Amino acid sequence: MKLSRLGEFGLIERIRRKQPVGRGVRLGIGDDAAWVENPSGSSLVTADLLIEGVHFDLKWTSLFDLGFKSLAVNLSDIAAMGGMPAYAILSLGIPANLDSKDVEELYRGVNALARPNGVSVVGGDTNTAKSLIISVCVIAHPPSRPLRRSGASIGNDIYVTGTLGDSALGLKLLRRGGAGLRKRAAAKLLARHRRPVPRLATGALLARERLATAMIDVSDGLVQDLRHICRASATGAVIYNERLPLSAEYRALAGKEGTRHALMGGEDYELLFCARRSHRGRIQELSETSRVPISRIGICVAGQGVMVLDQTGKGIASGALGGHDHFKNE
Amino acid sequence: MKLSRLGEFGLIERIRRKQPVGRGVRLGIGDDAAWVENPSGSSLVTADLLIEGVHFDLKWTSLFDLGFKSLAVNLSDIAAMGGMPAYAILSLGIPANLDSKDVEELYRGVNALARPNGVSVVGGDTNTAKSLIISVCVIAHPPSRPLRRSGASIGNDIYVTGTLGDSALGLKLLRRGGAGLRKRAAAKLLARHRRPVPRLATGALLARERLATAMIDVSDGLVQDLRHICRASATGAVIYNERLPLSAEYRALAGKEGTRHALMGGEDYELLFCARRSHRGRIQELSETSRVPISRIGICVAGQGVMVLDQTGKGIASGALGGHDHFKNE
Repeated sequence: MKLSRLGEFGLIERIRRKQPVGRGVRLGIGDDAAWVENPSGSSLVTADLLIEGVHFDLKWTSLFDLGFKSLAVNLSDIAAMGGMPAYAILSLGIPANLDSKDVEELYRGVNALARPNGVSVVGGDTNTAKSLIISVCVIAHPPSRPLRRSGASIGNDIYVTGTLGDSALGLKLLRRGGAGLRKRAAAKLLARHRRPVPRLATGALLARERLATAMIDVSDGLVQDLRHICRASATGAVIYNERLPLSAEYRALAGKEGTRHALMGGEDYELLFCARRSHRGRIQELSETSRVPISRIGICVAGQGVMVLDQTGKGIASGALGGHDHFKNE
Repeated sequence: MKLSRLGEFGLIERIRRKQPVGRGVRLGIGDDAAWVENPSGSSLVTADLLIEGVHFDLKWTSLFDLGFKSLAVNLSDIAAMGGMPAYAILSLGIPANLDSKDVEELYRGVNALARPNGVSVVGGDTNTAKSLIISVCVIAHPPSRPLRRSGASIGNDIYVTGTLGDSALGLKLLRRGGAGLRKRAAAKLLARHRRPVPRLATGALLARERLATAMIDVSDGLVQDLRHICRASATGAVIYNERLPLSAEYRALAGKEGTRHALMGGEDYELLFCARRSHRGRIQELSETSRVPISRIGICVAGQGVMVLDQTGKGIASGALGGHDHFKNE
């Protein structure tokens, strides 16, 4: 089947079904990270492949930022399991127009995020390539019970950390260019696009305190990633549009786009999780003591799929609710 | 500096020097695999990135073979540490001309090697790309003392498993095409090029019995990889040309090339190791009981670099002794 018809998630599902689950694998393909046993103990493992022309354009990103972000997207997957990252393996395909200073600049970016988070780059592979390829694999220490995508129940509240849509709106302004980019608000949105900071501490706390029933990081867009939770947990979800956490900068610059980027933009690298109603107080407390905004944006319901309701309780046309799929042509 | 001047190994060395060695890292960048601590226990980790047009050409390989080989090169790195592989993470960049059947065929090849070796594919990442990209990361259980590249001493014998040069000569015949390819001997050489079998059992035995002082797998060519051992161990090495283990098929088809591919060809995925003279008997025994040919091909000497001597004891011109470097233009 053509991949453009099957889609990225269709392909992953097909691979997953055919892939035997081996000895020592507590959780294999299909979540934010795999969870595997060692002779004594266990680890979380995740990987991301970033390709020039597909995931980034060197016109719009510095090599430092690219290094930073390559690691960030992996640490965000670990955060979504509640783990603490320990080691990174970085493989590069390097085109002829880059020199060793460029590669070192990329490593500087990786290290700028790795060091404060206690992550060591322990190896990898370097090659020539026609365009820049960055492949990162991260190994992490799991919490006693890693947070999966499955586990949400009907009636659970749905929460998200931080604000949504900043990264996607930032990228849009960047592509459009011009005077808008020089505004202070634009700089903040761009920073969120270029150097996303994974929510490691919050993820680890939610896992340790057993406050979340299911969790994922928002990389493909809120609606798309919530669909993953719904499918894995066999629930549906309702999101209240007016509850979406938007930054002041987003509000200032989104214009007639409204919440579109917050719902579908992607690359937010915030945590999206479900929790029992009885934990509302403790989650509020965790948000206050850790100074990380956590917003209650919806509820898990019977059925399937994600519905977004406006202030009047009317559904926002679901056809407009996309999210990112690497293979499907939109 | 231009990467074509610095070279792959120059770049790796530069990265290694700047890379802090973090907490829990027993062995970081610069060996066949990294060795890292978990809260209880430790793991080996290795990664390889294979890029269409750089490492392979879909004209000359099936997707099944490509999957098989992508995992094989990583397992060979684990074999060279004496470890037993457990988990693989497979990330793909997939061009538009491939469909889901092709991707499944690649996975079939991966699994054909993974299953008999107890390796589980636990995750990865899938993306669109302009050309096929395969990034594999493998996590393994280490022996109590992993075999590093450093550790060889002056006077140590130098050994290699199996036969050398088959893969490189096979590739050469493939590229040349024509009637030569239809010979039975050619088929065997081609099989070694397409589906190299990593020496996991031998590597693990050598580590467990503490018979090797230093070890590496032959991926870039015997001379090149022996140089890595020499540099890490601060020794020189002498190789006796007439002792190089050559298959009957290689002898039949190498013609005037002589031992050239055995010395410099690469992609043999045999184990190259050093051992104390006092262990000659036990290594011979290990070779016989495990039915894996192990040939004593040289000796570690004072000084630096690798010298290859012909039957008369004369050095073979070292300028001719290359080996593969991804960045240097030869």
